[in-house]
Amino acid sequence: MTMAATTYKTEGIAKATIARMGMYLRCLTYLEQQGAVTLSSRELAEMTGVTGEQVRRDLSSFGRFGKRGSGYDVLRLKTEIETIFGRGVERWRCCIVGVGSLGTALIASRSIQKWGFRFVAAFDTDPNKIGSRIERLPVYSVDDLKAVVRREQIAIGVITVPASSARIVSRNLCEAGIRGILNFAPQSVKVPENVPVLSVDLSQEFLKLSFYIQSAEQQARQERAQINAASHAE
Amino acid sequence: MTMAATTYKTEGIAKATIARMGMYLRCLTYLEQQGAVTLSSRELAEMTGVTGEQVRRDLSSFGRFGKRGSGYDVLRLKTEIETIFGRGVERWRCCIVGVGSLGTALIASRSIQKWGFRFVAAFDTDPNKIGSRIERLPVYSVDDLKAVVRREQIAIGVITVPASSARIVSRNLCEAGIRGILNFAPQSVKVPENVPVLSVDLSQEFLKLSFYIQSAEQQARQERAQINAASHAE
Repeated sequence: MTMAATTYKTEGIAKATIARMGMYLRCLTYLEQQGAVTLSSRELAEMTGVTGEQVRRDLSSFGRFGKRGSGYDVLRLKTEIETIFGRGVERWRCCIVGVGSLGTALIASRSIQKWGFRFVAAFDTDPNKIGSRIERLPVYSVDDLKAVVRREQIAIGVITVPASSARIVSRNLCEAGIRGILNFAPQSVKVPENVPVLSVDLSQEFLKLSFYIQSAEQQARQERAQINAASHAE
Repeated sequence: MTMAATTYKTEGIAKATIARMGMYLRCLTYLEQQGAVTLSSRELAEMTGVTGEQVRRDLSSFGRFGKRGSGYDVLRLKTEIETIFGRGVERWRCCIVGVGSLGTALIASRSIQKWGFRFVAAFDTDPNKIGSRIERLPVYSVDDLKAVVRREQIAIGVITVPASSARIVSRNLCEAGIRGILNFAPQSVKVPENVPVLSVDLSQEFLKLSFYIQSAEQQARQERAQINAASHAE
């Protein structure tokens, strides 16, 4: 359970910065596959939809990275961001609690595996699933959660159970010494202060999109109105 | 396809603000169910993990809302944020393209439905799925995508196909007049400028969590080291 100490500053980094760093990493991985060797902060900005100034500020908030003017080395920058995210330092052993359709989708996701996250156990309450394998992963009873999490030295618990079970599951994960929780259940969970929890609510993405649609259509209406007004004025 | 014009300012609102507005809405919905009548920006801030100042700035960026000091009316604030997100104005007709495990999870999600998003059609390439119903939803062939999207006046297309098919699917959705796209495929899609696209990459949430874990553990190590140093100094 020990980790090599990173040389990067990780305290006091805003959540939005972390989210953007993830986006940069995804772009850099793509660029590396495409054979790119260097890129400028402006290019990275264009690919991710933020300003070049923001990219430079984000990268400098971690203390190093470098070479303004001559641009960034794609492979080096990718490796450094990976180190910030703990990739290379270790592979993250994960378990999924609740093997419904979302749980199954996450286990099967190759992009999650690609970042070094490895599912080693799944848990469910369904007797038809317990003892079977889903996407090659053994499915245990949730009654065995604490024992399996300890034995398999699982670092990350992913909760995909219904809202009503989320709290008891998160408590059991914490009691078994989990290091972090990703919570997809539509229910907030309470954990000790030292255990980071990230709650993901997919319905929020639908809400956000509906806002963007309205915003775009409102703008289009205003532009049409302006054009009409201008043509009447002629 | 026409929409009532909203009275809210929707242009130039930062994406992070929209994300927080979604969080506020979720909290307000919860509070309303719990029977709460008023709340302060500070309470809303505590529940969502942002500062009170941020809450006030976010709400004021839309132009109205009010009553500092005496706090916000829970039901009224909830209704106003819902209006910003287009709820109440209309129900959003959605289709899902690719009925694998993630697609099935989204169709089945009650929290998505709760916000007014209604799936009316699903598409797949699997002959065993086409013509059947998944979670009560008719599954059509992707070959019929354009015709069905037009006929059913579908506003939002949700892409849950493999990366290799994402671009052709998004093109067909746009040609059929889709108003917005939610893309879960690990592949960016190109669409006309007037069609908002929101790409959701679940692997990024794993990356973010791994960062928070390292950050928390690094801080804990530093605190332990300080305590050790202090006890040696005594």
